[in-house]
Amino acid sequence: MTTSDLIQQIKFKKSFLCVGLDTDLTKIPFHLRKHHSPIFEFNRQIIDATAKYCIAYKPNIAFYEAEGLKGWEALKQTVNYIKENYPNIFTIADAKRGDIGNTASKYAQAFFENLKFDAITVAPYMGKDSVEPFLAYESKHTILLALTSNNGAFDFQTQTLDSGEALYQKVLQTSKTWENSEQLMYVVGATKPKYFKTIREIIPQSFLLVPGVGAQGGSLAKVCKYGLNKNCGLLVNSSRGIIYASHGKDFMQAAELKAKGLQKEMAGYL
Amino acid sequence: MTTSDLIQQIKFKKSFLCVGLDTDLTKIPFHLRKHHSPIFEFNRQIIDATAKYCIAYKPNIAFYEAEGLKGWEALKQTVNYIKENYPNIFTIADAKRGDIGNTASKYAQAFFENLKFDAITVAPYMGKDSVEPFLAYESKHTILLALTSNNGAFDFQTQTLDSGEALYQKVLQTSKTWENSEQLMYVVGATKPKYFKTIREIIPQSFLLVPGVGAQGGSLAKVCKYGLNKNCGLLVNSSRGIIYASHGKDFMQAAELKAKGLQKEMAGYL
Repeated sequence: MTTSDLIQQIKFKKSFLCVGLDTDLTKIPFHLRKHHSPIFEFNRQIIDATAKYCIAYKPNIAFYEAEGLKGWEALKQTVNYIKENYPNIFTIADAKRGDIGNTASKYAQAFFENLKFDAITVAPYMGKDSVEPFLAYESKHTILLALTSNNGAFDFQTQTLDSGEALYQKVLQTSKTWENSEQLMYVVGATKPKYFKTIREIIPQSFLLVPGVGAQGGSLAKVCKYGLNKNCGLLVNSSRGIIYASHGKDFMQAAELKAKGLQKEMAGYL
Repeated sequence: MTTSDLIQQIKFKKSFLCVGLDTDLTKIPFHLRKHHSPIFEFNRQIIDATAKYCIAYKPNIAFYEAEGLKGWEALKQTVNYIKENYPNIFTIADAKRGDIGNTASKYAQAFFENLKFDAITVAPYMGKDSVEPFLAYESKHTILLALTSNNGAFDFQTQTLDSGEALYQKVLQTSKTWENSEQLMYVVGATKPKYFKTIREIIPQSFLLVPGVGAQGGSLAKVCKYGLNKNCGLLVNSSRGIIYASHGKDFMQAAELKAKGLQKEMAGYL
């Protein structure tokens, strides 16, 4: 899926909502837990309930790995289900991988070739040669961690370098010099709106994947005020706030209502 | 496996060799590729050939994820095989994970509970709350990336902060303040021996997992000169240099010979 296809979908649906599939067997409704494939079944119903209102799905890979083989099977089924039924929806593997070149190539193979995701989140700590194997896939997108939504972001990401810039700014600047950098997107947490202005000065055109609205307390209004650009340039994620809006049999309706509410708010900002 | 158990094994075997299981279907001997479980079968034979000479195995998770469900199955079989047949050998999931707290907990569950690894490599970019869920497992070890073996390490890890210290030094210093930090070990690349002295000033007692000897060109002599401490304090990894020492039917003998050679060299340094 190209960036222009993504922009077209955003305009068409008047939404830049990404639904995070952090599917946890201990949190899905009781009546689904005895299903032979409970994770996929939950995801399938959440997807059918929310596809009209979102332009991306983002399975959080940790939740699938925690379930071992069954988790991987459910992950594969979930991506396939989206591709087959909602081919215009962007799929993001929230995997935050990062390793030396020959290893990064294997992760790229896992998520881009075998699982057929459109995009993957990647950590920058190991630098250029740990990210370029993902960027080598020209039809795919690599979403680099810049400034994350958690408190730990202040441990290293906001530390000032002797050049005067913060580490996350250095990451943004440096990444622009990498091969195929036009396929980069960036993770910027909704909980840190005051940083969006500086970030937009460095990467005015890039898409930002913004977690932290909802359970983590970020404000959609502030994210839009400082983060929107002429092509929208935002993918705002909500996970727990949508998929666990209800833990009962009405979870589909509750998820739909939450997604619809966010889409309506987003339409107002576009 | 406790640190003192590990030290005991190092003394007993006169070795601090970690064998990296970067098992790639396109690189294992031809006669194994038609086996119903080629990855596990290759690993099993490599393990049997090298267990006498090493104190740790480190499967590189990317290589297993790249093979999807079959890869995960092989990974599980491999860890189980080591635990059952060589219970005194330390097992490291080279996964380089790093995410917000609730997600990090899921990765910890995947690698410490389901797969029963003794240790996992973790990336520091997201800070304290992304690492502490791993440290919460008191019988396990968390191996934090400090200064990696690749060229990309110079992009961010060696950048100087306005405090005068390099980012990797800040990572080392800060991590010492985290809860259960005594369970931390650190990744330091063999290709950067001149940094070992500074690193040992910050973390004199900690174990360092050292990749980069062999295919990446690091020198064991230099690593030992600057990295050894009174409890050894090193786990030196070789992957490709051992497991692909031969691509023919004699791969077990070739791997054994390489492992034995490294063990002998290590015995000299201890």
